[in-house]
Amino acid sequence: MNIEMIRAAYARGKGTVRRTPLLSSPFLDEIAGRKLFLKAECLQHTGSFKFRGGWSALSGMEPDKRAKGVIAFSSGNHAQGVALAAKMHGVSAVIIMPEDAPRVKIENTRALGAEVVLYDRGSEDRDLIGDKLSKERGLTLVKPFDNSFVIAGQGTCGIEIAEQAKEEGIERAEVITCCGGGGLTSGIAMALESDAPNFKVRTAEPVGFDDVARSLHTGAIQRNNALTGSICDAIITPQPGDLTFPIMHRLCGAGFAVSEEETLRAMALAFERLRVVIEPGGAVALAAALFHGSDLNEDTVIVTASGGNVDKDVFMRALATLE
Amino acid sequence: MNIEMIRAAYARGKGTVRRTPLLSSPFLDEIAGRKLFLKAECLQHTGSFKFRGGWSALSGMEPDKRAKGVIAFSSGNHAQGVALAAKMHGVSAVIIMPEDAPRVKIENTRALGAEVVLYDRGSEDRDLIGDKLSKERGLTLVKPFDNSFVIAGQGTCGIEIAEQAKEEGIERAEVITCCGGGGLTSGIAMALESDAPNFKVRTAEPVGFDDVARSLHTGAIQRNNALTGSICDAIITPQPGDLTFPIMHRLCGAGFAVSEEETLRAMALAFERLRVVIEPGGAVALAAALFHGSDLNEDTVIVTASGGNVDKDVFMRALATLE
Repeated sequence: MNIEMIRAAYARGKGTVRRTPLLSSPFLDEIAGRKLFLKAECLQHTGSFKFRGGWSALSGMEPDKRAKGVIAFSSGNHAQGVALAAKMHGVSAVIIMPEDAPRVKIENTRALGAEVVLYDRGSEDRDLIGDKLSKERGLTLVKPFDNSFVIAGQGTCGIEIAEQAKEEGIERAEVITCCGGGGLTSGIAMALESDAPNFKVRTAEPVGFDDVARSLHTGAIQRNNALTGSICDAIITPQPGDLTFPIMHRLCGAGFAVSEEETLRAMALAFERLRVVIEPGGAVALAAALFHGSDLNEDTVIVTASGGNVDKDVFMRALATLE
Repeated sequence: MNIEMIRAAYARGKGTVRRTPLLSSPFLDEIAGRKLFLKAECLQHTGSFKFRGGWSALSGMEPDKRAKGVIAFSSGNHAQGVALAAKMHGVSAVIIMPEDAPRVKIENTRALGAEVVLYDRGSEDRDLIGDKLSKERGLTLVKPFDNSFVIAGQGTCGIEIAEQAKEEGIERAEVITCCGGGGLTSGIAMALESDAPNFKVRTAEPVGFDDVARSLHTGAIQRNNALTGSICDAIITPQPGDLTFPIMHRLCGAGFAVSEEETLRAMALAFERLRVVIEPGGAVALAAALFHGSDLNEDTVIVTASGGNVDKDVFMRALATLE
């Protein structure tokens, strides 16, 4: 895993992966107490950064292998990213999804041409299901984060952040990422290490599901005690990845853990001030920047809004936090 | 009014005016029955394309004149665009707004440093109020659409559409604009006449407030019968402008009129499929493309989402149209 792999993924995605805007609002700057920029990956194809990794994996695969089809397991965003990338390459995709994933994510994955297999997040091991199906049908497994092509794809988001920050005249910043298994975080951290070495990456997670923050703090991989019970479905993973954690440990600062209330409030402020739709798991970095400013060190903070696939009922709960 | 004025406004806005993304979704293509692209001006600074015109007017003004301050009248989006452009130039702004404008627009205009004067949309003439105040205080009036610098600023959106369409490989398209007084429409039409001559601009308005469509149809300026009673506050104007109408008449095809139900449904689909927040007046073009496809002639349609400043209650009404 190195910066050249990220640059190669960037080149393969040119003209296909959307360059998402870096948004800002004087109203959010005021709440955060510093300049705040939001990298709107919710506007990426399929509504999350996961298309970057899916496209990178499919476009970087040997054609003969790719032609047999791919398989992925995902709470929804990786599913859609891989499904669309497979469809655009004209190959089949099987997606294993938890049965409690947001309806819109399951439907969208099916509508993008993938075969969806549902499992119980509490009692079944998605890795075992994935291994079995991939062997039976000769499919190539595209892991959601512990795959160097996927990490490289997510890292293209970091190349864009460095470019866009330069255009904005930003010389130093903390970059907060919404962190599940660490694919986006490690990819961005490697890209910024090379292209914006004065930027420090930090992670955000929900309170009670902060395996990455605890792992970074202790220096060894820690697991979450529970895998259900958070509205941030997109970023609840058992533990950081074997490939991603060493990168995060080397490059990232201390992680944030934000409450559900802060997350919903961040979604509402993004609606009101930036006019973008962010899902709970994609709003934790913004929540950290807005409501945990005393733990930030720089005058500029950049957050990823990593996805926007949210059911209307959850979004209405967020809107209800507006006066 | 000519293309060189638009190119000059584009040059003055470089690095300040946001280049908004051109978004798409296979799900919306399916509903529209053709390729559909949305120019997300709701992501522009202040949440609407109006910042383009405001910035163009202020940056194009003689410095001595500008230093005395500016005045504008607006239902809200032009207000915010001018207020921010004035703030960024370090000059004062007085904004005359209808008292029934969305609360968020009034508050935002004040928060951007402008002095807000409210009036009754049904009984008072905003032009008279504006003329009086500008004479009393030596302020320069920045009209919302009948001002060549403002039209030139809005036209920069058309330059971007032509560039982005080329990147997408689009050779022919209909471009539907959300149309109030015609500043955005005439600016885009002039830009595309030069930069994408195979593109045809068409307008969208709410049913019952389709002064532009009727004016285009009859070849002479027609007035709206009412100025209240639509959720599309941003685009309800008495009649097309004296500067904008001749341009629209020369360059535009037949206009669309869409229902309130179609508008709310378009807002909901933009939430679900594009993850952007659009206000009612900014959603009529998308509604036309999605639900009036039988009146379209090309395989590709591009719509402007001209603004995203919407109160949560109206947005919840839109979300309620989702199953």
